[in-house]
Amino acid sequence: MKIREKIHEVIFEADTPLGKIFDIVLIVLILSSLVTVMLESVESINAQYQEVFKVIEWSITIFFSVEYVLRIVSVKKPKAYIFSFYGIIDLLATLPLYISLFTTGYHALITVRTLRLLRIFRILKIVQFTSAASHLGQALRASRIKILVFIYTVCILAILLGTLMYIIEPESSGFSSIPRSIYWTIVTLTTVGYGDIAPQTPLGQFIATMVMILGYGIIAVPTGIVTASLNQKYTKQNTQACRNCSVEGHEDDAQFCFKCGDEL
Amino acid sequence: MKIREKIHEVIFEADTPLGKIFDIVLIVLILSSLVTVMLESVESINAQYQEVFKVIEWSITIFFSVEYVLRIVSVKKPKAYIFSFYGIIDLLATLPLYISLFTTGYHALITVRTLRLLRIFRILKIVQFTSAASHLGQALRASRIKILVFIYTVCILAILLGTLMYIIEPESSGFSSIPRSIYWTIVTLTTVGYGDIAPQTPLGQFIATMVMILGYGIIAVPTGIVTASLNQKYTKQNTQACRNCSVEGHEDDAQFCFKCGDEL
Amino acid sequence: MKIREKIHEVIFEADTPLGKIFDIVLIVLILSSLVTVMLESVESINAQYQEVFKVIEWSITIFFSVEYVLRIVSVKKPKAYIFSFYGIIDLLATLPLYISLFTTGYHALITVRTLRLLRIFRILKIVQFTSAASHLGQALRASRIKILVFIYTVCILAILLGTLMYIIEPESSGFSSIPRSIYWTIVTLTTVGYGDIAPQTPLGQFIATMVMILGYGIIAVPTGIVTASLNQKYTKQNTQACRNCSVEGHEDDAQFCFKCGDEL
Amino acid sequence: MKIREKIHEVIFEADTPLGKIFDIVLIVLILSSLVTVMLESVESINAQYQEVFKVIEWSITIFFSVEYVLRIVSVKKPKAYIFSFYGIIDLLATLPLYISLFTTGYHALITVRTLRLLRIFRILKIVQFTSAASHLGQALRASRIKILVFIYTVCILAILLGTLMYIIEPESSGFSSIPRSIYWTIVTLTTVGYGDIAPQTPLGQFIATMVMILGYGIIAVPTGIVTASLNQKYTKQNTQACRNCSVEGHEDDAQFCFKCGDEL
Repeated sequence: MKIREKIHEVIFEADTPLGKIFDIVLIVLILSSLVTVMLESVESINAQYQEVFKVIEWSITIFFSVEYVLRIVSVKKPKAYIFSFYGIIDLLATLPLYISLFTTGYHALITVRTLRLLRIFRILKIVQFTSAASHLGQALRASRIKILVFIYTVCILAILLGTLMYIIEPESSGFSSIPRSIYWTIVTLTTVGYGDIAPQTPLGQFIATMVMILGYGIIAVPTGIVTASLNQKYTKQNTQACRNCSVEGHEDDAQFCFKCGDEL
Repeated sequence: MKIREKIHEVIFEADTPLGKIFDIVLIVLILSSLVTVMLESVESINAQYQEVFKVIEWSITIFFSVEYVLRIVSVKKPKAYIFSFYGIIDLLATLPLYISLFTTGYHALITVRTLRLLRIFRILKIVQFTSAASHLGQALRASRIKILVFIYTVCILAILLGTLMYIIEPESSGFSSIPRSIYWTIVTLTTVGYGDIAPQTPLGQFIATMVMILGYGIIAVPTGIVTASLNQKYTKQNTQACRNCSVEGHEDDAQFCFKCGDEL
Repeated sequence: MKIREKIHEVIFEADTPLGKIFDIVLIVLILSSLVTVMLESVESINAQYQEVFKVIEWSITIFFSVEYVLRIVSVKKPKAYIFSFYGIIDLLATLPLYISLFTTGYHALITVRTLRLLRIFRILKIVQFTSAASHLGQALRASRIKILVFIYTVCILAILLGTLMYIIEPESSGFSSIPRSIYWTIVTLTTVGYGDIAPQTPLGQFIATMVMILGYGIIAVPTGIVTASLNQKYTKQNTQACRNCSVEGHEDDAQFCFKCGDEL
Repeated sequence: MKIREKIHEVIFEADTPLGKIFDIVLIVLILSSLVTVMLESVESINAQYQEVFKVIEWSITIFFSVEYVLRIVSVKKPKAYIFSFYGIIDLLATLPLYISLFTTGYHALITVRTLRLLRIFRILKIVQFTSAASHLGQALRASRIKILVFIYTVCILAILLGTLMYIIEPESSGFSSIPRSIYWTIVTLTTVGYGDIAPQTPLGQFIATMVMILGYGIIAVPTGIVTASLNQKYTKQNTQACRNCSVEGHEDDAQFCFKCGDEL
C-alpha cells in the first residue's frame, strides 16, 4: 500500500482504528481551539494567559493547515474536494489566524471552525443520526417555499407596522427612525421583547398589543407547515417498493402499484 | 396593434419580454423608494442628503402617478381596476407625497408602497409560489372562526387578569391604570415580556407566574388549529376517486388505482 | 300572554326582534361600563370626569340589578338559574359597586362584567361559532390530564432550577430568595424574559442558557398534545353511524361495523 | 404478620388505609419542608422566625431519615431499593441538612426534596395519569435523536452568530466577550429576550432581526417533531390485526373487523 493511500485512509475514513483515532483527535482539537478563542475574548483571562493561548492557537492552526494540504494530496479528485462544502470549511478554518498577522479585528473569525464540528455526524456514523438529520432536512426542504412566502409576508407586515409606530410614537420612546421602528416591530412580532424600545403613548401601546397578538397567532403558521410536512413524511416512510417498477411511496393498504398497475 | 393595447400588454402582462422588464423596473423602484424613506427618517443621514432624497422621491412618485393613469386608461374595465385590491394600493402608493405638500407628519406613510411588493407573487408566477400561498391562505381561512373565538377568549382573560394585577400591585410598579395593566397582561400572555412593567410584590409575581404558564400553554391552541387545518388540506389535496372501484386517497403521481389496479 | 312570559321572552330569547334588541343593548351597556371603569383608573382622566363616570356606573349597575331580579322572577326554575354559570356572573356583575359603598379598593372588580361578554356566543347563535368553540373545548378537555402532568413536571423543574440559580448567583443579581429565583426560572422557561432579574456570573449565564433551550424545547409538548388531540377530532368527525347498533367513529374506509359486524 | 411486613405495607403500599394515610402525611411533610426552605431564604421573614424554621426542618429531616432506614429494613431487596431512582432521591432528601452542620451555603439544596413529589403519580395511581405520563414519555423518547440533532445544530449556529455579533458590536453594547455574545444569541434565538444586552449599531440590529426571525422559524422544528411523534402514537396505539384478513387500524373498542366483518 502506498503512503498516499495510507494517508487517505487515516484522514478520510472513520472505520479503521487509525481513522477513528484521527477523527477523535480532530474533534478534540477543534473544541480546544474554540475554547481558546472564547477565553481569549474575555479580557481578564486574556491578560493573564495571552502567551499560552497564542501557542495553542498556532499549534492547532498549523496542524489544520498540514491536514488540509494532506487531504488535497491524498484525495483522488482534489478539485472536487476543494470546492465541496467540507473542503471550503477546512480552508476557512485555517485562514483567520494567518489573516490576523496582517490586520487586526477579524481574529475572532476563527470560530468558523465550529462548522467543522458538523463532521461529528460522519464520525458517529450511527444510522439513526444520519436518518434523523436527513428526515428533518427533507421535511424542511419540502416546506421551503411555504416558509419563504411566510417570511416575505411577515417582512411586508413589519415594514408597515413599523412605519405606523414611527408616526404614532414620539422620538423619546426610542422610535427615532423607521428602521429602528421596524427593528422594534420584529422584536415584538417574534415575541422576543427586549424592552430597549417600548411604546409610551396609550395609542402606541394599543397597537403594540395588536402586534403581539398577531405575532402570537402567526407563530402557528411555520409550526403548522413543518408539522404537517413531518407528518406526511411519517406516513410515507412506512412503504414498500414495487417489484416491477421499483416505485416507492405506496399507500399503506395498497394492493397494486400506482405507477405500473402491477400487483404488490 | 393599437397603442392602448400595447400599453396594457407592457403594464399588466408579465409574460412578454417588455412586460417582464417593466415589472422588474417597478420592483426596483419600489425598493429604492422604501430605502429612501427609511434613510430619510434617520436624522443624521437626512441632514446630509436631504436634497438627493427629495429628488428620488419625487421622480418615483411621478413615475407611479403616470403609471397609475396609464393603467386606468389602458384597462378594459377601469372601475373594476380602481376598486380592486391592487388598484387601491396603487393609488395609495402615490398619495402620501402629494399630501405632504399641504401638511407634515404623514410623509412616512409612503411606506404603504410596501404593499405593492405583493405583486412579486404575480411576477414570479411560479406555480409553486402561488399554490403555496393559496394553500396557506385556505388553511387560515378554514380555521378563521376558531381563531376568532380564541382571540375573543384571550381578550376577556386579559381584561380580567389585568384588573386583578391593577388591584394587587402598587402604582409604583407601573400598574398605574387598568389599560396599562391589560397592556402588561398581553405582553406577558404572549411571552413577549418587555420588562418595562414588571410585578414587584410577591403576590403579584405569583400571579404573573400563573399568567406566563397560561400563556405558554394556550400558544398551543392557535398552533394546533392551524396545524390540524394544514394537515387536513394535505390529505384532501391528493385525492381522486378510481372510476372502477371508487377508492380515494391516491398519491399525486398515481397512474393506477392501488386497490384494483385499474388505470386512473 | 302573561307579562311574566313576555319578560322571559325579551330577556332570555334572542330570536324575537325585542329579544335581539335587548341583547344588543346589554352588550353595549357592558362595553360602556368596561370603558368607564378603565378610564376611571387613569388618574388624569378621572380627575376631570369623575362625576360623569359615577352617574354612568350607577345607571348601568341599577339596570343590571333590575335585569337580574327580572331574570329570577320570569324564569321557570329560579334556583337552576341562580346557581348556573351565567346566573352567578350576572350577580357578580352587580355586586362590586354596592360593595364599594362600604369599603374602598375593590371598585375595579367591576370588570368582572367582562365575563358577561361571553353571552355574545349566545347572541350570535351562528352554528359555526358554537361548533368551533365546542370543538376547541372538547380537544382541550381530551388532553386535560396530559397537560396537568406536563404542568406538574414543569413546576418541579422550576423549583429545582430556581434553587440552583439561588445558590449560584449573588444576591446583587436579583436572585435574593428562592421564591424570586423560581419566579425568574418560570419567566425564562416560558420565554417571557422580562429582564428585571438576569444572571450576572458566567456560570449563572451558562445555566440560564440551558434553561432557555429547555424552555424552547418543551413548548413543543403542550403544542403537540393539543395538535394531536385536534387532529384526532378532525379524523373522527368524518364518520357515519351503524344502521344496526348506531355506533359512531368508524374508519373512513370501513365496510363493516366494528361493534356488531353488520355491513355499513 | 410480622412487624417487618407491617412496616413494608404501611410505607410501600398505597392501597391499604394505613398506607394511604402514610403517603398523604409524606406529601404534606414534603410540601411543608419546601415552604419552610423558601421562606427561610427570604431574609425579612427569616430574621423573625429563624427558630421556628429550624425546629420544623430538623423534625422533618429526622422523620425522613427514620423513614429511609425503615424502608431499607423492611424491603426484601435492600440493594435494589437503595440504588433505584426513588431510593437515591430518598437519601438525597435527608442529606443537605446534615451537611449544613459542617459547611454553609448548600443548605438550600434541601429543595432536592421536590423530586419526592414525583411519588404523587404513584399515590394517585389513577390509570389515566400514569398512561398520560408514559404516553408523553414514549413520544419524547421516540423523537430523542431528532431533538439531539436539532439542539446540536442550534448550538453550532449560536456560536457562529455570537462571534459575528461580537465582531460587529462595540464592547459598550454589552457584547464584551464571545461567551457573552453567545449567551445573547441564545437569549434571542429562543425568543426569551431579557434586554440586558441589546445591539446598538444599525448593522447589529439588522443581524439581530435575522436571528429573531430564524429563532421564530426554527421553534417550529421541535414542535413539529413532538407533534408528529404524538400523532403517530395516537394512531399506533389503536391497532390490532384481523385474524381473517390481516387488516390493521381498528378502533380501540372494535369487536369486529371493519373490512371483512370477522370477529376480532
